[in-house]
Amino acid sequence: MNLSQRLQTLSAALPKLQVDAFLITHLPNVRYLCGFTGSAGALLVGGAEPVFFTDGRYTAQAREQVRGARVQIAKGPLLSTVAEALKGTRSQTRLGIEGDHMTVAQEARLRALLPKPWRLRPLSGVVERQRRIKDATEIQLVRAAVQLGSSLFQPLLKTLRPGVPETTISAKLDYAARQAGAEGMAFDTIVAASPRSALPHGRASSAPLPRRGLVVLDFGVILAGYCSDMTRTVAMGRLSAQERGWYAAVLEAQLAGIAAVRAGVTAGEVDEASRKVLKRSRLAKYFTHSTGHGVGLEIHESPRLAAGETTVLEPGMVLTIEPGIYVPGIGGVRIEDMVLVTKTGCDNLTPTSKELITQQ
Amino acid sequence: MNLSQRLQTLSAALPKLQVDAFLITHLPNVRYLCGFTGSAGALLVGGAEPVFFTDGRYTAQAREQVRGARVQIAKGPLLSTVAEALKGTRSQTRLGIEGDHMTVAQEARLRALLPKPWRLRPLSGVVERQRRIKDATEIQLVRAAVQLGSSLFQPLLKTLRPGVPETTISAKLDYAARQAGAEGMAFDTIVAASPRSALPHGRASSAPLPRRGLVVLDFGVILAGYCSDMTRTVAMGRLSAQERGWYAAVLEAQLAGIAAVRAGVTAGEVDEASRKVLKRSRLAKYFTHSTGHGVGLEIHESPRLAAGETTVLEPGMVLTIEPGIYVPGIGGVRIEDMVLVTKTGCDNLTPTSKELITQQ
Repeated sequence: MNLSQRLQTLSAALPKLQVDAFLITHLPNVRYLCGFTGSAGALLVGGAEPVFFTDGRYTAQAREQVRGARVQIAKGPLLSTVAEALKGTRSQTRLGIEGDHMTVAQEARLRALLPKPWRLRPLSGVVERQRRIKDATEIQLVRAAVQLGSSLFQPLLKTLRPGVPETTISAKLDYAARQAGAEGMAFDTIVAASPRSALPHGRASSAPLPRRGLVVLDFGVILAGYCSDMTRTVAMGRLSAQERGWYAAVLEAQLAGIAAVRAGVTAGEVDEASRKVLKRSRLAKYFTHSTGHGVGLEIHESPRLAAGETTVLEPGMVLTIEPGIYVPGIGGVRIEDMVLVTKTGCDNLTPTSKELITQQ
Repeated sequence: MNLSQRLQTLSAALPKLQVDAFLITHLPNVRYLCGFTGSAGALLVGGAEPVFFTDGRYTAQAREQVRGARVQIAKGPLLSTVAEALKGTRSQTRLGIEGDHMTVAQEARLRALLPKPWRLRPLSGVVERQRRIKDATEIQLVRAAVQLGSSLFQPLLKTLRPGVPETTISAKLDYAARQAGAEGMAFDTIVAASPRSALPHGRASSAPLPRRGLVVLDFGVILAGYCSDMTRTVAMGRLSAQERGWYAAVLEAQLAGIAAVRAGVTAGEVDEASRKVLKRSRLAKYFTHSTGHGVGLEIHESPRLAAGETTVLEPGMVLTIEPGIYVPGIGGVRIEDMVLVTKTGCDNLTPTSKELITQQ
């Protein structure tokens, strides 16, 4: 992994952030920067060398996993050990903290423990912005996660039969994912048949699959820490002309979104490309969420592909493109791939076909 | 559900907390107080009537689920809508927030939005302390979750065969839980065979089960929002005399812990009761965690049954009793039940036998 480079990039940014040191406490950020995958740890950047703090439960794991930082095992509370490590400096006074993640209570504890003349400076989204651009190692890991996720789709189709509860479908999918080597699911698997397909986040329920209607299948796996995310909408039995029209419109919107992705365009422009197609079909009012989001160590990462978002796409970003429409009480369609932004366009990572599939 | 009583109890406590209103943002606390199970919402207590805030995605769900509070759908950011609702009061000035959950960034945003003369006052563990005592509805739900969890144990045993990867065991268990109606697992299922059984939190790995040794199985389900938690340690093949000695000692410690539970004793005294048994067997140095914890809407709740904890047990608390020993590099044993504290003792909710089971 390019961990030392990630840490160097962050360290080099500290002067611009107007801090002398930066305490990383959000665990996905900690993992990204130094490799630690446990459930308790913090990383201090900005001193002579980065220091990773954890507790006695993780002594062996930290020594095995952490790269680019000295490992220090806290005897007492983690924040006390961190504060202790800040003693003895004179010229350094400004400690950055992750304001989006540290709680009010943690900040108060840390402030009370801080040696003079240190004071806290909440920062926002620093490591998250760095994580937006995936490096070569990460792209390899994301590709592997997406491949594993996609490989589950054909077997999943075989489980779709009228009368089978949505939860049975999702339980079987999650089991297949784990048997195929996934560490777990990236989020609660969505299996939502009409009329529940009209709920953008319709977790699998006990409702049985209908003889006819739309079924939205949205799922992702975690492999080596990286998330996949894909959605397909499948027809049970024969669809109405209106439903087929919805499917065609969403597919066109999704393809337009993908076609709009390339380095240099804004996140908002991609959203607009998808939305425009649905406006033309007078379906835009049913498209009630954004077009996509970044994916990596977390399932929802920066940037958001939403109206007005000015983030400029850069090569190495990994995004979902997932327009959908939701007609209350009736049904919905969503289609989602993951793409890798390149200089001239994008690389669609999701190999699964988007032709409308009909289950009998 | 006794939701309105829960809200009344909290409202009545505000003067003592020295706040005029209290903004609840931790979702399990929100759910506990007003019934909302979605992923975005906040509850404001202390005005003429409690107000629940959420966004447009949850309009239907909020109206269906929320009891005892008026539902207000935010048009913009949730915190802006909350701040707006605080306008126009004069005598009220102190807004409590959940300092253990609100982030530094959220607090800063809220402070900037607050109308005069309001100011923020971080509170700690208020709703969590109320949630320690389960009411009749909750006890019923916890019992049902524990029953479901326990019902998975016998079928689980049948999957334990030498050579089968730990992850296969956990994937099958999780699938069985979902098929039996669980909403999901309360935490990552632990399947840890010697020598990994010596890791207190050894998530299932790709390691195959051995022909002989100890296997720690620790799992819980979520049913109607409530968590179950149980651990059994099973023998693969014939154990050594030392391993059988460990099992007997941990079982004795676990029974001693249960015997110590009753209203009026402290959490620390229960821990000491279990620990004393292991001290006698000179195994206390391998008992590296606390004896148990509260369980309810969250898997880890107050109180902690740890050395020196002064919380006094009260009827209606639901606790795990789970001593264990972990001999590095060799193996470990943990045995865990859930109990309900009563005036005179406790009610063991977990019906599964604790006799040593040997799989061939």
